[in-house]
Amino acid sequence: MAKEITTRADNYSDWYQDVVKKANLADHSAVKGCMVIKPYGFAIWEKIRDQLDTMFKETGHVNAYFPLFIPKSFLSKEAQHVDGFAKECAVVTHHRLMNAPDGSGVVVDPDAKLEEELIVRPTSETIIWNTYKDWINSYRDLPLLINQWANVVRWEMRTRLFLRTTEFLWQEGHTAHATKDEAVEETLKILDIYAKFSEEYMAMPVIKGIKTANERFAGADETYCIEALMQDGKALQAGTSHFLGQNFAKAFDVKFLNENNQQEFVWATSWGVSTRLMGGLIMTHSDDEGLVLPPKLAPVQVVIVPIPKPTPAIDEAAQKIMAALKAKGISVQYDQDMKNRPGFKFAEHELRGVPVRLGIGERDLANGQVEVARRDTKEKSAQNLEGIDRYIEDLLTDIQQNLFNRAAAFRTEQTRQVDNFDDFKSLIDTDMPGFLSAHWDGTTETELKIKELTKATIRCIPMEGDKEPGQCVLTGKPSAQRVLFAKAY
Amino acid sequence: MAKEITTRADNYSDWYQDVVKKANLADHSAVKGCMVIKPYGFAIWEKIRDQLDTMFKETGHVNAYFPLFIPKSFLSKEAQHVDGFAKECAVVTHHRLMNAPDGSGVVVDPDAKLEEELIVRPTSETIIWNTYKDWINSYRDLPLLINQWANVVRWEMRTRLFLRTTEFLWQEGHTAHATKDEAVEETLKILDIYAKFSEEYMAMPVIKGIKTANERFAGADETYCIEALMQDGKALQAGTSHFLGQNFAKAFDVKFLNENNQQEFVWATSWGVSTRLMGGLIMTHSDDEGLVLPPKLAPVQVVIVPIPKPTPAIDEAAQKIMAALKAKGISVQYDQDMKNRPGFKFAEHELRGVPVRLGIGERDLANGQVEVARRDTKEKSAQNLEGIDRYIEDLLTDIQQNLFNRAAAFRTEQTRQVDNFDDFKSLIDTDMPGFLSAHWDGTTETELKIKELTKATIRCIPMEGDKEPGQCVLTGKPSAQRVLFAKAY
Repeated sequence: MAKEITTRADNYSDWYQDVVKKANLADHSAVKGCMVIKPYGFAIWEKIRDQLDTMFKETGHVNAYFPLFIPKSFLSKEAQHVDGFAKECAVVTHHRLMNAPDGSGVVVDPDAKLEEELIVRPTSETIIWNTYKDWINSYRDLPLLINQWANVVRWEMRTRLFLRTTEFLWQEGHTAHATKDEAVEETLKILDIYAKFSEEYMAMPVIKGIKTANERFAGADETYCIEALMQDGKALQAGTSHFLGQNFAKAFDVKFLNENNQQEFVWATSWGVSTRLMGGLIMTHSDDEGLVLPPKLAPVQVVIVPIPKPTPAIDEAAQKIMAALKAKGISVQYDQDMKNRPGFKFAEHELRGVPVRLGIGERDLANGQVEVARRDTKEKSAQNLEGIDRYIEDLLTDIQQNLFNRAAAFRTEQTRQVDNFDDFKSLIDTDMPGFLSAHWDGTTETELKIKELTKATIRCIPMEGDKEPGQCVLTGKPSAQRVLFAKAY
Repeated sequence: MAKEITTRADNYSDWYQDVVKKANLADHSAVKGCMVIKPYGFAIWEKIRDQLDTMFKETGHVNAYFPLFIPKSFLSKEAQHVDGFAKECAVVTHHRLMNAPDGSGVVVDPDAKLEEELIVRPTSETIIWNTYKDWINSYRDLPLLINQWANVVRWEMRTRLFLRTTEFLWQEGHTAHATKDEAVEETLKILDIYAKFSEEYMAMPVIKGIKTANERFAGADETYCIEALMQDGKALQAGTSHFLGQNFAKAFDVKFLNENNQQEFVWATSWGVSTRLMGGLIMTHSDDEGLVLPPKLAPVQVVIVPIPKPTPAIDEAAQKIMAALKAKGISVQYDQDMKNRPGFKFAEHELRGVPVRLGIGERDLANGQVEVARRDTKEKSAQNLEGIDRYIEDLLTDIQQNLFNRAAAFRTEQTRQVDNFDDFKSLIDTDMPGFLSAHWDGTTETELKIKELTKATIRCIPMEGDKEPGQCVLTGKPSAQRVLFAKAY
């Protein structure tokens, strides 16, 4: 093996960190809790970002950019929001450094204290709705369908690369509407985009659902989410879409003149996904050999390895294949490194998750064949050089689908209906807790009690599937429908 | 007119701000010195960013992402750098807010003081070279050709939308090389990319040159730049590319094992352009009717206005034209708004700088014609519907070229050779100071003296053109070549 990584069975958490670090996706930085996204990891993020951006634009959204800083007082304006976000955050108090009088380096200039502290945005509802106040006057100014790609900071005590970092990258959509119906429709439209992106591009099956009041975004009337199941049986919240009602419009006094010439408060949504998706991508598909990438998000989809070394004949065949693949829009790399042997290279390309590997040797060529290895199943086969581009095109589609099917089958296997609390406890306490579909009486009290007893939280009230009423798994009280419990990231 | 804007002759600075605000490019925010980039302005920035990104990638660069925060002590590590950057910057001192004991809102939690303050990056050399230390061991790890798109913060007292803001968006390239020659070559390669982008996409002619020691980036051995001339005769530094020598490698102890098995310090470059380019774009081409955009960076290249209102026949013709233009990759919008009259719409589309406007009336259609208006010259002409897509394609190319030619002719006109200091003073004191090409004795003392007397600075020592030696315009001492002086943004 090129670089040793911990196996999942040995220690899932170490395995995750090994994959992230050794596949050159990200690393810790000198600033506690902040990560460096390395070029290979960033290339994957660029694919995620570009695809989502395309989907947002296709549905009429435009990008803009709002300030990094939020005046401290803004956070207090929305009563719920302040409790959720005005806590662990980076506070800018001064705007100048100076040379230390004793020559020991630079120190904060005490004369450069800000009148009002600035908060590095943990999310931008407040500064954006403060701006929308100037942009919205009449129904003709609506809807506003704006997104921004930005960095945000939430001071975290315990961080994990991509999954929870003090600074992270995300997109945050902030829309303004004339009616409640239109805002709700927007919230759900975005939820569908998130689900479609997760399933069709990340090959990561998700459950669409509604958050309980307790898990709702601070300032939202309703939070919708997509939830995925990782290989260790823990859930990952992969994206949220919030119907904000008129809460921020009221907090920032944003009204519009409706068609009947009356002043009304504006209706709002906000929605976001972040570099956390990278964590979900890694944990959904990867294995003990390293990263496994769905072809649609792989920066390099095919790698060609000469066996055992480049020769003029192999080079020529490789160039031909590359030209044919590129003509089909397939990204391909030819590994001409002279230093390492094929076995080393195979391990390297497996580690970084290249979906398809072609091995070309002189003997293969003489037979008009190449060796094709797929990363997802690690199957190898000899294939005819003739038509290899079409074969690979189909294979990439097949790998994309297989990864989704595999993850969907895993999730089905690890989703269990539970109807009494003893079963609940014993299932959630295993090494593979999974999703538990159980009845809940709808109270925050019961939700918190179950969390206290089991560490499981309600991931969502699923929007599709079983809607039959029943009795709460803890209290026996009436329940409108089953909800999904899990331990979560 | 749709929205009144100040004329350039009246007040150039107000004109600029009017164009930025009324064409919906950007606006001031609630945070002093920070701007909001509005959707239309951001769409132009996206075009700038995407094209530069393509050019960087074509030359082997990759993107990554480094932390927003820099530990305060890092800024002191490079002796020159600390003087240049550890001054006006945003300092994070705390990581938590709490409810005020008196219930008056949120206050900074005094218990959450950071052990070491964090600086919001004004530029990222220090945090990146601290990271490169871990990434570089041997010559096999070199070169590293990394870029990041990021926000940076430099606390500014006097700000102007796009041109000088406390927070701005930019790209910063940071490369590491095994040899000095290779690093110098990289510095110049990037300068060429910047110049090519400015001239071919922004239609903004630039002078490539070298900064004097006094104007050099803090920590660089040599700073190269591109300088453009704005319509008010002031210069704009549009991009810089720095050869950093081994300064940052030494400050952060970044060594590599060369092919002879010896430890050497790594050679570095850094380079950047920012949202300031938006200011240059606006000031190079725009006029008293508003924004003028070069077709290659226009979010909408063609707008179709029905005269006076949409009718089925006009709609049909518009749809046909749109399909033909889209097939050629030309972006087009059909203004079907029923509320406003054509004259109002014309003014609106002029204000936002759409390069080509088509007017379609029933009578035109009967004659098989449409009216074509170009934004750059405001010429109108009747053109045959037949082949209109090819006509417009050529017209866009022509407009792009014409904008460049016009700006180049203006710069030539406003560049003057000056050989005595009286002429220098009287020319620089006019309403149209322009570039003054004059001899300089090479000392910082003379440079500063001239600045004190005239407010003109040395924009650059041009790399091309007149290299004849002469005598300093102020001191009469020997001069190696003429340099370019100007008042600058």
